[in-house]
Amino acid sequence: MSQDFLTLSDDDIALLPQRKRGRLVNSLSGFKSVNLIGTQGGPEDKPNLSVVSSVVHLGSDPALLGLVMRPPVPRDRGSHTYWNIRETGVWTVNHVNASIVPQAHQTSARYEFSEFDAVGLTPWPHCGFDAPAVEEAHVRMGLELADELPIERNGCKLLIGQIRWVEFPQAAWAPDGYLNLEALDGVAASGLDGYHVTRGIGRFAYAKPDEPHPECRTDFMDGWGE
Amino acid sequence: MSQDFLTLSDDDIALLPQRKRGRLVNSLSGFKSVNLIGTQGGPEDKPNLSVVSSVVHLGSDPALLGLVMRPPVPRDRGSHTYWNIRETGVWTVNHVNASIVPQAHQTSARYEFSEFDAVGLTPWPHCGFDAPAVEEAHVRMGLELADELPIERNGCKLLIGQIRWVEFPQAAWAPDGYLNLEALDGVAASGLDGYHVTRGIGRFAYAKPDEPHPECRTDFMDGWGE
Repeated sequence: MSQDFLTLSDDDIALLPQRKRGRLVNSLSGFKSVNLIGTQGGPEDKPNLSVVSSVVHLGSDPALLGLVMRPPVPRDRGSHTYWNIRETGVWTVNHVNASIVPQAHQTSARYEFSEFDAVGLTPWPHCGFDAPAVEEAHVRMGLELADELPIERNGCKLLIGQIRWVEFPQAAWAPDGYLNLEALDGVAASGLDGYHVTRGIGRFAYAKPDEPHPECRTDFMDGWGE
Repeated sequence: MSQDFLTLSDDDIALLPQRKRGRLVNSLSGFKSVNLIGTQGGPEDKPNLSVVSSVVHLGSDPALLGLVMRPPVPRDRGSHTYWNIRETGVWTVNHVNASIVPQAHQTSARYEFSEFDAVGLTPWPHCGFDAPAVEEAHVRMGLELADELPIERNGCKLLIGQIRWVEFPQAAWAPDGYLNLEALDGVAASGLDGYHVTRGIGRFAYAKPDEPHPECRTDFMDGWGE
């Protein structure tokens, strides 16, 4: 690919048509996670499922994930995921894999009834937990709301959740703790609408200043010990 | 891969050895972006470069990216990226591509001098901007600190930055605004130390409830119009 670089200033970005700007800026953080968020609630206690690319790791001890949500609208006009989480305090995170990308993407349509039924995914109950997971996901977990931070510049919310339970295929868990997302056909997102599977380059050893060429292992299950 | 599922509770996670827990929980958000953060500052006004997987999209109007930082230690003990950003108010975000993964990973070692020199990457100055970018990156941009949110549960910080300029190869920019990260050899991360290139599945049309089978385009440069 030609490497003729284009430079855009903040004014150039602001002057792009809205959708073109959205597609560009959504590409600028790099590849993103793709997860289905499962919740339940509202006047009819309906299950809800929505695809997001805004789940982010926040810490391991305690195990915290962040979820960036658009500025919520009043409950009777939408934002079902946000209001269900506010009501029940819990949600599920379900990794999207290559087999369910079209169904996952389709959950972003505005449905009046359950997205599970609408797109053909199966609710997976976890005993005593007030949000449904997704049976077709290979990695699924339940989170409990720990905090909500307002992002004042644009009205978005950062929901901080603690992982209460997690399920994944035992065969994908390396002895050193690494979970082999690629072996589970996990996908990454780009921009607003791009989906990708991955091909591993390798796992690199903990970097030390006196070893300037980090060891690389191409077998992702061959970890670094405890 | 065998689909015998393992279930871990929050107590099971908390009782894992620290490194094993870190490797697992860092895998649970899904694939992550991989970026080099460029800053400059401190008593000797040194350039600094560090690899992160915690850059996240926050919004397109204005164009905002988040950067999750570990709990900062006092300046004389480390946290150079954090303190440089606090001092200058700016940083660069540089996408890691397949050609520079070993160098990028190596920036996580504790160097006393510039990581640019230590790992063999080239500072790329942007006129009037107080943080160096990375010449070898195909997508590079400058951000200005807009806000800092404390994550009270673990002492981390969410830095919110507005994009002030961005540079990328013109040939990778689709007419509808999408930036083709895969054509630019961009990489995704998994866990603490895994790196992956991608293979595109496709771009999916805006989902509508009355069209349950979303159109998929496998040419990533063939967008959806404005």
